[in-house]
Amino acid sequence: MIEMRSDTFTLPTPEMLTAMTEAELGDDVYGEDPTVNELERRSAELTGKEAACFFPSGTMANLASVMAHAPRGTKAVVGTESDIWLYEAGGASVCGGVVYEPVPNRPDGTIALADLAASFPADPDDPQFALPSLICLENTHNRCGGAVLPLDYLAEVRRFADERGVAVHLDGARVVNAAIAAGVEVAEITAHVDSVQFCLSKGLGAPVGSMVAGSAEFVGKVRRLRKMLGGGMRQVGLLAAAALVALDTRERLAEDHANARRLAEGLALIPGVEMDPDTVKTNIVIFKVTDERFTWRTFLASVHQQGLAVTEFGHGRIRAVVHNGVSAEDVTAAVGIVARVLKEGPTAG
Amino acid sequence: MIEMRSDTFTLPTPEMLTAMTEAELGDDVYGEDPTVNELERRSAELTGKEAACFFPSGTMANLASVMAHAPRGTKAVVGTESDIWLYEAGGASVCGGVVYEPVPNRPDGTIALADLAASFPADPDDPQFALPSLICLENTHNRCGGAVLPLDYLAEVRRFADERGVAVHLDGARVVNAAIAAGVEVAEITAHVDSVQFCLSKGLGAPVGSMVAGSAEFVGKVRRLRKMLGGGMRQVGLLAAAALVALDTRERLAEDHANARRLAEGLALIPGVEMDPDTVKTNIVIFKVTDERFTWRTFLASVHQQGLAVTEFGHGRIRAVVHNGVSAEDVTAAVGIVARVLKEGPTAG
Amino acid sequence: MIEMRSDTFTLPTPEMLTAMTEAELGDDVYGEDPTVNELERRSAELTGKEAACFFPSGTMANLASVMAHAPRGTKAVVGTESDIWLYEAGGASVCGGVVYEPVPNRPDGTIALADLAASFPADPDDPQFALPSLICLENTHNRCGGAVLPLDYLAEVRRFADERGVAVHLDGARVVNAAIAAGVEVAEITAHVDSVQFCLSKGLGAPVGSMVAGSAEFVGKVRRLRKMLGGGMRQVGLLAAAALVALDTRERLAEDHANARRLAEGLALIPGVEMDPDTVKTNIVIFKVTDERFTWRTFLASVHQQGLAVTEFGHGRIRAVVHNGVSAEDVTAAVGIVARVLKEGPTAG
Amino acid sequence: MIEMRSDTFTLPTPEMLTAMTEAELGDDVYGEDPTVNELERRSAELTGKEAACFFPSGTMANLASVMAHAPRGTKAVVGTESDIWLYEAGGASVCGGVVYEPVPNRPDGTIALADLAASFPADPDDPQFALPSLICLENTHNRCGGAVLPLDYLAEVRRFADERGVAVHLDGARVVNAAIAAGVEVAEITAHVDSVQFCLSKGLGAPVGSMVAGSAEFVGKVRRLRKMLGGGMRQVGLLAAAALVALDTRERLAEDHANARRLAEGLALIPGVEMDPDTVKTNIVIFKVTDERFTWRTFLASVHQQGLAVTEFGHGRIRAVVHNGVSAEDVTAAVGIVARVLKEGPTAG
Repeated sequence: MIEMRSDTFTLPTPEMLTAMTEAELGDDVYGEDPTVNELERRSAELTGKEAACFFPSGTMANLASVMAHAPRGTKAVVGTESDIWLYEAGGASVCGGVVYEPVPNRPDGTIALADLAASFPADPDDPQFALPSLICLENTHNRCGGAVLPLDYLAEVRRFADERGVAVHLDGARVVNAAIAAGVEVAEITAHVDSVQFCLSKGLGAPVGSMVAGSAEFVGKVRRLRKMLGGGMRQVGLLAAAALVALDTRERLAEDHANARRLAEGLALIPGVEMDPDTVKTNIVIFKVTDERFTWRTFLASVHQQGLAVTEFGHGRIRAVVHNGVSAEDVTAAVGIVARVLKEGPTAG
Repeated sequence: MIEMRSDTFTLPTPEMLTAMTEAELGDDVYGEDPTVNELERRSAELTGKEAACFFPSGTMANLASVMAHAPRGTKAVVGTESDIWLYEAGGASVCGGVVYEPVPNRPDGTIALADLAASFPADPDDPQFALPSLICLENTHNRCGGAVLPLDYLAEVRRFADERGVAVHLDGARVVNAAIAAGVEVAEITAHVDSVQFCLSKGLGAPVGSMVAGSAEFVGKVRRLRKMLGGGMRQVGLLAAAALVALDTRERLAEDHANARRLAEGLALIPGVEMDPDTVKTNIVIFKVTDERFTWRTFLASVHQQGLAVTEFGHGRIRAVVHNGVSAEDVTAAVGIVARVLKEGPTAG
Repeated sequence: MIEMRSDTFTLPTPEMLTAMTEAELGDDVYGEDPTVNELERRSAELTGKEAACFFPSGTMANLASVMAHAPRGTKAVVGTESDIWLYEAGGASVCGGVVYEPVPNRPDGTIALADLAASFPADPDDPQFALPSLICLENTHNRCGGAVLPLDYLAEVRRFADERGVAVHLDGARVVNAAIAAGVEVAEITAHVDSVQFCLSKGLGAPVGSMVAGSAEFVGKVRRLRKMLGGGMRQVGLLAAAALVALDTRERLAEDHANARRLAEGLALIPGVEMDPDTVKTNIVIFKVTDERFTWRTFLASVHQQGLAVTEFGHGRIRAVVHNGVSAEDVTAAVGIVARVLKEGPTAG
Repeated sequence: MIEMRSDTFTLPTPEMLTAMTEAELGDDVYGEDPTVNELERRSAELTGKEAACFFPSGTMANLASVMAHAPRGTKAVVGTESDIWLYEAGGASVCGGVVYEPVPNRPDGTIALADLAASFPADPDDPQFALPSLICLENTHNRCGGAVLPLDYLAEVRRFADERGVAVHLDGARVVNAAIAAGVEVAEITAHVDSVQFCLSKGLGAPVGSMVAGSAEFVGKVRRLRKMLGGGMRQVGLLAAAALVALDTRERLAEDHANARRLAEGLALIPGVEMDPDTVKTNIVIFKVTDERFTWRTFLASVHQQGLAVTEFGHGRIRAVVHNGVSAEDVTAAVGIVARVLKEGPTAG
């Protein structure tokens, strides 16, 4: 099976397994796991922030970040197509008494500044309105096809947020992909935000975990929230050891981007597929099947039967994600499967 | 000053003041205020529900209703132009751990069933998604110009909700206006919903309060929540006495509707005003000033200086609301003020 | 029926009813009700604070105060016998994500400073612990028999709180009783706390409402929270008018205290009643029926049949509360009823 | 350093590390990690429940369990000495809108049924009171010295809970210790509760994780909550593989119990130590230093300097925990260190 449902399906490499068995460990709830401490130091360095903290998942990393920034009763402004809004079960409302204010994402993953502005009430003293305290961005932007937010856009949002006195959090689950695609350092991106979370377990290929980085004070807050939410773990240096290998080999993501581009170009040539390869900047490929013999469900089932796993991704679109478990040969094979399926029509259910 | 900012500005009538001084009272926290009990009985009857409960405000009436229907961690589907979403400070997220899912209101106040359907995840077992438990409608619809939701639309939403196994709550702050405008009983409207709140202190003209009606079990729940939220009051039969007068005289709302229509027709004739009188069905008149010499702020200031109070109402629109403190003569005078202001241009600031 | 279940059963006086019908009114949600504004000004003055805000109930007044002081995730330290902890449905946990830390009340209503200190973790940086942000006191202390907290105790708690960097909120539902019993100004008591709520509808005798007083910034916060909780009301100057009469006549509480003392002295003489009159300082009388023929349930039923309403009050104790609906003659009659019932034994069920 | 601060300091055994490197993995967020699935199956079997779910920590396991049982606004009855109440940052109030009701633990870790009963209001219809929905027990009981709750006590609480219509959750962080100490199957203990969490990372010695077991419906709920809280992890079969080794070797806990007993007997002989060895039933040893030259702080520092790490444990007591990183020789050495320190007096600071 060629696994393109998500880059979360990556398996640990032999180097990671070796690192895990050799890692120096301790009880991280007491702050005594040296491998975790090293990963936190390295993550702060990577993002150009004072401090960082390991989390069991991107969901908790985002949740703790939103709770640390947004007092109870305030609004977190999020994109209508953002993962925080769509795929994280509303945690900030449940655990934080925070109101989500979804505002439109444009196809390139940005939110128009006018739309951000419209989420602030004209009269902040009017108690009818919950007041925004936080803007959340996403980079790369998953539902917008792995789009990379321009640095000058980030700078504009930073200025806007400063004028309004609110914080900016970056859901940078794939921010390392963004940096590599843009040819910049991660820290050049994260310079524009107060906090960032990035996932170790997506393209980076580590088995488990996400990092939150920000000021020392902020990281102190999310570390406290992590305990309350149940994200404090014991000899988790095991996982951190694998993550350190992932960070060391992060340049490898360029291969994923090249493979994704090849996949997109291959798909674009297939009749019945709608795909503009120029929209593919990182490791995510989103396309549509326009052949009317198919629904997205029958398309997914048909390619699955031939050995290719992809997913539906909202609005009837199909998502294929390239990662370190997908080789150049797999990409060629995947294009062949889609071409064959579209030629032959849906598999009889 | 002609007060058209809202129908919440109504002052108690002499009949109401007399009723208040003569009311039989008790401690309603103990359920021993006979006047409150009578008002609750009458409100249940009016809405065709098993029971009803008095609340200090429409905000709390809606909040308790949402909390009673929607368990922590579920979604309340609300219209993007609804008062519950826009003007109630996000209370259900703060106090209830409920996630608001705003979906588009159409100009007539309805929400397309396709948009309701889109707020339900394809796979309800996927824990990434908060699940909808409640749909909230609003009738008449304030930000949609006092629009009256059609009965057959309510029936469709009822069927949809039953199929999905979720409840329907009606923010019927002005549901009595809706009934009178449509020439039906309130209970014909509320037959399609599980619960309804209606305001005593808007067009009905009572000084304070809102009622929630629904099944006996549901009303038991909101009554319990009312205590927790701090809405349990003592000799509140004083306010209930005024409200009973308001209910007895509710047919009077037809006059407000006629006055609002006359106001709209008058405004429609004024150059520089955009107003379609056929959109005015109840007591709310929404128009735009297209004369480019004005911003909404300078328009409000200019008419205010001449003795007319109206408000901005989102998207640069102006709202004027007719109520029992606005006579036919006031309407004529208001039209005159707007005409004069638009002729003369903005008042020097 | 002699109504001694609570001082919340007071009915409005003729002066109050007249004041209500003559009050100048407005929409208080817009801050335009002059009678409410006057009541808020007077309440700030009474308590020696910068500002005050009207609430529909003491429950909401306390809830908003706790939420304004205590960020989500912190602890509010409360007495084990306090009304905030026992009778307010846990609102601060539900609506505020605040953890209640109940610590023992001593019989005089105070909390030992050592017990306050024990609620602070030795290591505030240890994320296992929610951190206290607020101490709540109650004066007079209802479950401690209307006890009056000594001024020097309040000063000690103030110093302790300042050392720890936490706020002090006073549930002063009956703080005017406390002031009158102690022969001091209310402001001498409230000088030691950051915020205070006091009830208009208990001994003061107004029909509905409570006031929160504190710094202007704090009152801004509780006013905002009031709207979210649903405590913003319209022409509520009606109720404020009655409350102003109540404030003007507050010296009357001295009569209640004298009557309560006489009640206690009368009860103390009855065989089978355990009552120390010296514990009665204000308008609350708590006693025990030691006659073994009675349970508290049969005692309540027996005196009720004879025309006296009192309540059970935890730990099998009986509470009788004196207020402006209880005359000196009623007190004499009540003592007679209890004596007769204890002589004759329980009424056959 | 002899590490007796906690049994959370256990390091993975070579067998665990080997199992981790050989484990078959998948993305557990998709339910596709076969090693996790096997661990969940085994855990359900061990506890005699329909299903089980892996969590990153005991804190989250307890939090999700409380939230699954206790609707917003209800009370979770917890022991005053329980870990859920003392060491989990109040998460159920913050994330769940649940009110904690702490009731006294007796020295043997049980809660008197009369105290449980007292946490239920006399009149459940009175909205002043939050209603209990859940009772939480702890077995073995950490702060009560690793006490094992008697089976017949558990049966009594079960009957009580059934009468009251509430659920029982067991914080069984060390329930395997309890079973082994009592010579019964874990399932004989957990038969009396609706749900149980047990820690893989304490005495069992796995590096990370806790299991929740209960009915299939209940486990479905906690699994959903786990995602919202951020406990859904990816290739977490790595950790599950180590945990399976821990389960297979769980009989080893008997050695810890024997070592703890030896430690207690040794300490009991030292002048200036208060220790009753008969209270030690499992792997936790709690003692007091009565020698007045020491505070707990100087005692901890003194033994630490000699190579023994233990902790203060509330009320000035000292806790030492035995686990698979503490050998029989370590126990002997630890007794020697304490004896020497008490002979020589506190180390000069």
